[in-house]
Formats: sequence, structure tokens, C-alpha cells
Amino acid sequence: MALDYKRSHTCGALSASDVGKTVNLSGWVHRRRDLGQLIFIDLRDRFGLTQLVFDPERNKATHEIASRLRSEWVITIRGEVRPRAPGMANTKLATGEIEIDVTEIEILSAAKTPPISVADDTTDVQEEARLKYRYLDIRRGPIAQKLAVRHRAMHTTRSYFDKLGFLEITTPVLVKSTPGGARNYLVPSRIYPGNFYALPESPQLFKQLLMVSGMDKYFQIATCFRDEDMRADRQPEFTQIDVEVSFCHPDDIIWIVEGLFVNLFRECIGKFVKAPFIRMTYADCMEYYGTDRPDLRFGMSLIRIDDIAKHSTFKVFLDTLASGGCIKALNVKKGSDISRRQIDAYIEFVKPFGLGGLAWLKVTDEGTSSSFGKFFTEDQLKEITSRLEIEKGDLVLVAAGPEARVNQGLDQLRRHIAQERKMTPEGELSFLWVTDFPLFRYNAEEGRIESEHHAFTAPHPDDIHLLDTDPLKVRALAYDIVLNGYEVGGGSQRIHNSELQEKIFHILKLSPDEIKEKFGFFVEALQYGTPPHLGIALGLDRIIMLLTGTDNIRDVIAFPKTAKATDLMTGAPAPVTEHQLAELQIRRK
Amino acid sequence: MALDYKRSHTCGALSASDVGKTVNLSGWVHRRRDLGQLIFIDLRDRFGLTQLVFDPERNKATHEIASRLRSEWVITIRGEVRPRAPGMANTKLATGEIEIDVTEIEILSAAKTPPISVADDTTDVQEEARLKYRYLDIRRGPIAQKLAVRHRAMHTTRSYFDKLGFLEITTPVLVKSTPGGARNYLVPSRIYPGNFYALPESPQLFKQLLMVSGMDKYFQIATCFRDEDMRADRQPEFTQIDVEVSFCHPDDIIWIVEGLFVNLFRECIGKFVKAPFIRMTYADCMEYYGTDRPDLRFGMSLIRIDDIAKHSTFKVFLDTLASGGCIKALNVKKGSDISRRQIDAYIEFVKPFGLGGLAWLKVTDEGTSSSFGKFFTEDQLKEITSRLEIEKGDLVLVAAGPEARVNQGLDQLRRHIAQERKMTPEGELSFLWVTDFPLFRYNAEEGRIESEHHAFTAPHPDDIHLLDTDPLKVRALAYDIVLNGYEVGGGSQRIHNSELQEKIFHILKLSPDEIKEKFGFFVEALQYGTPPHLGIALGLDRIIMLLTGTDNIRDVIAFPKTAKATDLMTGAPAPVTEHQLAELQIRRK
Repeated sequence: MALDYKRSHTCGALSASDVGKTVNLSGWVHRRRDLGQLIFIDLRDRFGLTQLVFDPERNKATHEIASRLRSEWVITIRGEVRPRAPGMANTKLATGEIEIDVTEIEILSAAKTPPISVADDTTDVQEEARLKYRYLDIRRGPIAQKLAVRHRAMHTTRSYFDKLGFLEITTPVLVKSTPGGARNYLVPSRIYPGNFYALPESPQLFKQLLMVSGMDKYFQIATCFRDEDMRADRQPEFTQIDVEVSFCHPDDIIWIVEGLFVNLFRECIGKFVKAPFIRMTYADCMEYYGTDRPDLRFGMSLIRIDDIAKHSTFKVFLDTLASGGCIKALNVKKGSDISRRQIDAYIEFVKPFGLGGLAWLKVTDEGTSSSFGKFFTEDQLKEITSRLEIEKGDLVLVAAGPEARVNQGLDQLRRHIAQERKMTPEGELSFLWVTDFPLFRYNAEEGRIESEHHAFTAPHPDDIHLLDTDPLKVRALAYDIVLNGYEVGGGSQRIHNSELQEKIFHILKLSPDEIKEKFGFFVEALQYGTPPHLGIALGLDRIIMLLTGTDNIRDVIAFPKTAKATDLMTGAPAPVTEHQLAELQIRRK
Repeated sequence: MALDYKRSHTCGALSASDVGKTVNLSGWVHRRRDLGQLIFIDLRDRFGLTQLVFDPERNKATHEIASRLRSEWVITIRGEVRPRAPGMANTKLATGEIEIDVTEIEILSAAKTPPISVADDTTDVQEEARLKYRYLDIRRGPIAQKLAVRHRAMHTTRSYFDKLGFLEITTPVLVKSTPGGARNYLVPSRIYPGNFYALPESPQLFKQLLMVSGMDKYFQIATCFRDEDMRADRQPEFTQIDVEVSFCHPDDIIWIVEGLFVNLFRECIGKFVKAPFIRMTYADCMEYYGTDRPDLRFGMSLIRIDDIAKHSTFKVFLDTLASGGCIKALNVKKGSDISRRQIDAYIEFVKPFGLGGLAWLKVTDEGTSSSFGKFFTEDQLKEITSRLEIEKGDLVLVAAGPEARVNQGLDQLRRHIAQERKMTPEGELSFLWVTDFPLFRYNAEEGRIESEHHAFTAPHPDDIHLLDTDPLKVRALAYDIVLNGYEVGGGSQRIHNSELQEKIFHILKLSPDEIKEKFGFFVEALQYGTPPHLGIALGLDRIIMLLTGTDNIRDVIAFPKTAKATDLMTGAPAPVTEHQLAELQIRRK
């Protein structure tokens, strides 16, 4: 009769209080130590390690089997829990005080030598190999832990929305390709040759239609797709927490999402998050941080000194101001140790963003030194000192140029310096709502106004009067949530009033034909009784990355794709048979 | 100052206990009754209806606005809850005892006349129109209720598995096309022209790999895809509750799934389900019901009378037996009212299944009449009477022919008669486990043995010895769950032992090259330490259909497709631009 592989405990469960029990364990051979007589095996599953002991004097047969075991073989054993010998406890291990005196063993499956080491998860294995043998990479532990956090995050999200009366409603994956937006993956139709489905970039239209349907409060953890040339932190298929509600205001979405994050951090990693979160307008974010997703875990905000600089004699500054540019400075507190050489490196760092260089000012025990001081009066320098709160030991860096470049360059520099100088307190979370985004932007190439978000985003009620006169000044009821400098979500109030919608289409210079082509049936749907509605979409992958402290999006996805959108494990994408293509009536161009 | 559309209550919330409260309600104009002076509006949302009253003597302005309202306009109101006039209460409505005396009103959005009536959900609207205006169809109510049940079922499922220590792990949607199985939807790769992803028919390989990864207990509510010519109850994208566990036995899966159904029926529709469920072997199912998914809510099992018939003088029966066929009968209890004409209709009913006809025997007050009695002795008829438990008032129908045809014909006839004669007790649930499926089947066309399920299904341990001698007799550790005659799920133990796997490949006559081509990297993965594992997949859509009592799969999906795989609302699939095709380097053949 074979030994039953059904377990009485996992490999992470037994402790001193179990001594004397007879237990059944199953798992993988993690390490084997053969001490001449005694053989020790660390048996592993995703819950932990348990030490097994095989003593030939007590049981010759099991010892003989144990001597044949190799790494990653799967075994099941029966034995008695006993305390480890005095001084042999392993305090790093949950099960470190006990070991199992094995009385029965059975090999469930042998294993070939794994191409990447499972037991030694500290070895630096090429990511390519880790992706090819993803099943072994997961077995090593760290990825498995992140997948467990991902499960907890998804379930916490669902329980949270369920308690608030939301319904999770699954929207289709085979949808219609819509012009604009990200590039869609297409799916040829066999039944209608020459026709295609698209995989959705988001459930946006469907969730708005659910509000038109009266579904009131919708959410979904939705898989979305984009066929883009990928940045390192993107995946062709990604996951979004998608939310839409009717008869509510942006403040309602804001507290709902804040509550979600409080729950997520508490349930997933036992961390306390303080709500409400800081709110900052888009305009303030751009002014003080040069970005709409500032990281507020550290200071160094950007301070405009246009008004002081314009009275200086520094030609670079004066020319910049004359041509409509701006001058902003940031104060690296206690940065006076930063060498000239390092400052030169910062100058090289900002050049790709279109800045000509950086001016600087340093205050040390020896006094103030500066690349631009001589062009400023003492009073002007005092004003700068006061405005930037410069103290002894500080380094100030100044950029001059067109505002967009100054903002981008200093934003990147600010993040770079903070990382380089480890200015981010370990484990700190900085949540931020960015509000009042602009409704439109000017497309200089095509010489026309276009929607910043999409054509259904509601304008700020205080700015409705500007729609005719100065549309680019109109703010939207749009909001983003930023965590530690990453955008983790964004949404908006949608237009529910058809006259207002007409006006927006008019400003966008869309003809009825274009409206029909671009938005089709959706605009029709909005005419049959649309409630005020609004929503948000949160990037689940990014949230899990922040919860698990990884910068690699592939670490939080069970079977991820490379930056080239391939699955190294299965070999997708791959050629298909001629028969398959013939059925779809397509061929390679 | 506009009236705030934020609600104090939904339209289904107010009752007599709220009389005197000032409330804010928002919703859709369901019906308007203009009684000369007073105007009554039924305000609707997905939670219910609330009656609004506009009295021009009390408020001329709101009355004037109310007089302009039309069906499906979205409004918000403020007013006071008051009891309805004596005798005017509507006991059918949760809010039927009260009405709102409206003091403020605002029109949020006007509506064009909807193409299908929302208020009158009893009107028989063509399904084509309902699908085209799905957002209005959902607004009518019955679909919305089913979507709410679907949400509850999904959340109950997730909470149940979470409590049992399962992790929900999302597997990819862009996968590799695998030969065999259902036809895959293909997705052309832009980065690797001529290569394709496939949309998964199921997460089968991934979930087994997760077991190889040591993830121990996996589940997922997964969207799956098949590009098949669809039967009425199928959809190109469908949803599966997918489960896999390590170091367990089929009995463990069985109790896990039984517990799931107990939870689902209790949480979703407040129904008590008795577990454990009945189990029946595949062989018994086929013998007694002619199908592997019998509906046990009614009797009429199939009774074999070969042994009696072979001593009769009925040529049809004797010829059938001589050519290896069988003779089975079913007893329609109290079916003696069934006319000869109706029996003729049954004969026509079974002909498409390859049966030549039906013999019959009827016992009435006038005695026994039969189409075959004269060929049987009295003793033989007595034996039939006893075996089929024939009583006065019964009708027995007998089929003779090749076993597969008899089984199929009588299975269909049995279901047909049960439906026709309403033999199914209202609301009864009949769960059944079908076990011990055959491991292989004989493909007569290709003259070889093939897997009944897939090549990784474990054989029954008691039948291992038959693998070499009589493989077609080997049972698999495979199990299906059947509810009211529908297969709602199926699964199996997988092979974890590589020697046994080799043997199965050998029986299937698969060469190493074919193994590599068919199963590729997966077979390699199984060699690095595979735990014993097993699982099941349950059809969520079918389960929701059974929970909500509908026969139409489109009723339980928010945005379904037609049997021709089109979305009538969005118009998918549709042509795409030349530019899109050029990017993918494909064109129409």
C-alpha cells in the first residue's frame, strides 16, 4: 500500500508545540545534507521548509531512499515531530525548532536538474532564463509571495466594493476597434472575413453604458490590452480596477478610492495609510514640481524666480525671459557636499530634456559660491535666499528655458537627486490627488483644439463660461491619483447633458459625420436618458508593484511577457498552420 | 443654485417609517400620469420605483416642469415623504405605502423616445432589438437582476476559495495556439509579422504549471474563448471557474465543489442545497440514462431487456440482438393517457437519432395493449412488468438498435417526455457526480486510440494493469458535475509520474517529435518536479443560468454576442483601416 500523499500539515506549519505528533508532509527536496550516517532533507512548499531526518539505525529502508533523493524531487513522508538537538535550532525558520524523524517515505516524482537553481534564490539568474522557466522561478519564492499579495489585493478590492453596493460586471474582451487611443490588438473574424474584433484598451464605453443602463455602481478588475512599443514597465495585457458611479460627485469617488487604498495596504501588507490624501491642482503640480505626478516623499519643490532674475544682469536669464521662458530653482538641502564634477553630471543629465545647462549656488562654511551670483545684487541674492529658504550647507540648482522644458528637466533632476542621495524615507507612502486638469490641449501640428482626456469629460462648472471665449483655460472635472510619484489611476466626471455635449463637439470642430464615425452608437445611447456619472480606473499592476516593493512589472504577473511582447515560456506569438489562416481568409502581406 | 443630484435614498428604499422626512431622489421617469390637476410620476432606478406627486396649488413651478417630463428623462427631486391617500397604497411595491410631495425638481437629461419600451418590460421585444439597445434592455430590470446575481455568484465563489486558502491567479489572454481542442481565435503580432497569439480555450496548461510552480491551491474566474459555430447556448467568450490543487485526491475536489454550490445557492438565491451529492459511474449513467449527464429530477430510467427479448419471437428485437445491438425500455408512469398519435410523434422524435421506431406497451382499465406483446409469452411479459415496475396506467416505450443510438434516442425522448408532461418539480435541484469516465476512446476513422479528455489525465489506479492489455477498458480519474441534466463542470486527476506519462504517450502512439510538437515546453516543465495535482473547471455562465432560471445564456451576460458571434450594439466585428492591416502585415486572402 502506497503512502498517501495527502498532507496533515504544510511545510511551514509545525512548531515546538507539535512535538510528538505523527505527521504527513509532501513537498520538494530543497536541500539534502548527507552526514555519513544521518541524512538531513529540507522539505519545501510555498509555505516554508521543514527539516527531515533519516537515521539508518532507526530505519534502513527510508535512509536508503533518502540517499537517492536529488534537488526538486517531489516526495511524501510520514514521521514524528521531535525537537532539534540542543543548539541546532534555526531561529530564522518558522519550523526551526523541530525536525521530523521519518518513518515512511515515497518518491512522488523525480526531477531532472533544474536549469535555474530553485533552492538558491539569491543567485543572480538572467531574467530571460527566469521567464523561460517561469514555473521554476515562481517556485523559488519571491514571485510566489508577490502573487499571494496580488490575490489578497484583488480580493480586498472586490470585498470593499461589494460592501459599498457595487456590482462587478464583466465586459467583453472581443470588442469593436475604435479610432484614436492606443493601438488595438485585432482578432480576425472567421464568420465575417475581412472583419475584425479588437481587444479593449479599457472598458470605458461599456462602463458608461452600464450607467446609462441604470446599473448605478459598477466596478471590475478588468484585463486590458495595448499593442504599443513597450516601455520597461508596461505589458501588452494589463489589469485595471475600473469603477463608475451614477448620481455622485468627484468627492465621492475620492473617498471611495481613499478607502480602497486604506484597505489594500492594511490587508495586504499590514500598513496604516492616513486618509484623506493631499489634493493639489494640476496647475500647482506643474508650477511647483514640473509634473502632474510629483513624488512628495521628499522636498526640493521648484521655485520660480522670474521676477528677481529679470532685474539681474545675467544675459542667459534675461534672454530666456525675453523669449517667454521661465527660471526655476530647487534647493538641495545639505547638498553643499555635491562637487563641481557632480554638478556637471547634473547638467549632462538635464540636457536631453532640452535644457542648456544649470546655474548653481552653494553655501558652505567658506561662504557663498555661485555660477550666477555676480550678475545679481546683494538684495536680489537675499531675496532668492529667503524665497528658497537657503541655509548654510545647501546647494541650489537653477534652470532657465521654455517652461515645458524647465518643468520636465527639473522634475527628472529632482527625482534623480532624491534617489541618488537616498532622500526617500524607507517605507513612506505619499498619496496625492491631482485635480483640475485642463479640458483641452492645443494640437499645434494640426492647428486645432483636442480633448486632453476624451470628448465626454465634463468641464469644471466654474469654467463653463470660458468655453466660448477661452477654451484652453477651461478646467476639467478630471482627477488623477499619484502614489510615490507614480500615476496609479485617473478618472473624470462625464458629460450627461446633451446640449453641453454638442457644445464640446462644436469646440472640437467635429462634424456630425465625424461624431458618428468616431463615437457611433455610443452617442446615440447617451440620448436615451443618461444619468450624471463619473468614474476612475486604477492600475492594478502598478499598485501591486508598490505593495510588494518591486520596480519590475513582470514580478507581479504570473506569466508575463517581455518588452517585445513575447512569452519566453510558451513561445507566443508563433506561426500558425496554413489551415488556420485559410479559415480566417487572411494571409501575410 | 442647481439642486444637487446626490441622493439621500434610492427609489426602492422609502417606506411608511420614513413619512415626514425630506429626501433627495434621482432616477428615470418610469410613468407619468397627468390627472388634470395632480401629476404623478413613478421615479425609477435599479432598486425600485417611488411615486412623486406634483400639485400645482402647492408648487406651480415644479408642476410646470413635471408637465414637460417624458419617459426615461433623468431627473432629481427634493420633497417630503408622506403616506399615500387611504386606499391608494400599492402592496406590490416596496415603496407602495408612501409618495413624495415634490418641492424642487431639476431635469438632469432629457431623453429621446426609446426604441424599445423600458417601462413595459412585459412587451415581447425581438431579441435582436434588445441586443442592439442592450443598455435599454438592461434598464428594463430582468437582465439587471440577473447581473446582480452574477456579481453575487462571482463574489461568493471568490470568498469561498479565499477562505479555503486558494489564491486567485490571473493567467494570460494572449497565449500560444495549441493544436487540437476547440478552434482558437487568433491575434496577429505586429512586432513579429506572420506570428500569432491565440486567445485561450481554457487556462489548462497554465494552471497545471502553477502546480508545478508549487502554488498549491489555485482558482480563477477566467474568461475563455472558442471560435466555434455556436449552438444557441454558447458564446464566443465564456467564463469558467477554474480550480487546481496539489497533493489532494478527487474526493477533496468533490467536497470543495459541493461546498461551493451550497454557498452559491444560499448566497445568491437563498436556496438550501443538500450535500453530499449523488455519485454515479459513467458506465451506470450510460446504462440507466443513456447519457453522461442525466437529469435525475424525474424517473424513467432506461431498463435493458435484452435477456428477455432474446427468447421472444419478435424479429426486430432478435435481429437487433443478433447484430450486437440492445433493447432498452422506459416506463412513463401514468402515461396510459398518451394516444397512439402521440406515440407516433415520439417515434418521429427518435428517428433523427438513428432509431427505426419504438415499440410500446400500455396498461389501462381495459387491460394491456402493446405493439409487441404477441411476440412474448405471458411469463416473459410478467418479467418485463416486474423489471419495469409496470402498474395500471403506465406506458412503456421500447427502443431496439445499436447501443449508442438507443442510448441517445431514449435519453432525448426521456427529457422530451419529462418536459412535455411537466414531470420536473418546480425549483428542484438535482446534482450528480459522474465518475470513472473512460480514459481512452477508439477513433475508428483514424484507426487508433485517443484520449477521451487529454493526454495528462490519470488512469484509475485499479486499472493500471489494463493499460497494456485492454486500454479501452481503463477508467480515468475524471469526474463531471451535472445539475438538472446540464454538465456544469468537469475535471480530472493529472499524471505526475513521468514513467506513467511515457506509457500513456506510447499507447497513444505519439512519437517524441509529435509529443514535442503537440505539448512542447509543457512536457519539459513536468520533468522538473511535478506534484500530484488535479482540478476542475465549472461553467459560470451555465451556473448563473440555473441560479436565475433562464434558458438563454445571453440573459446572464452584460453585453453578449449573437449565435453568429456579433455584437449588435457596437457592430463588432467590423472592418478596420488599411493602416491597421498594414501595421500587422496581413491582408485578406
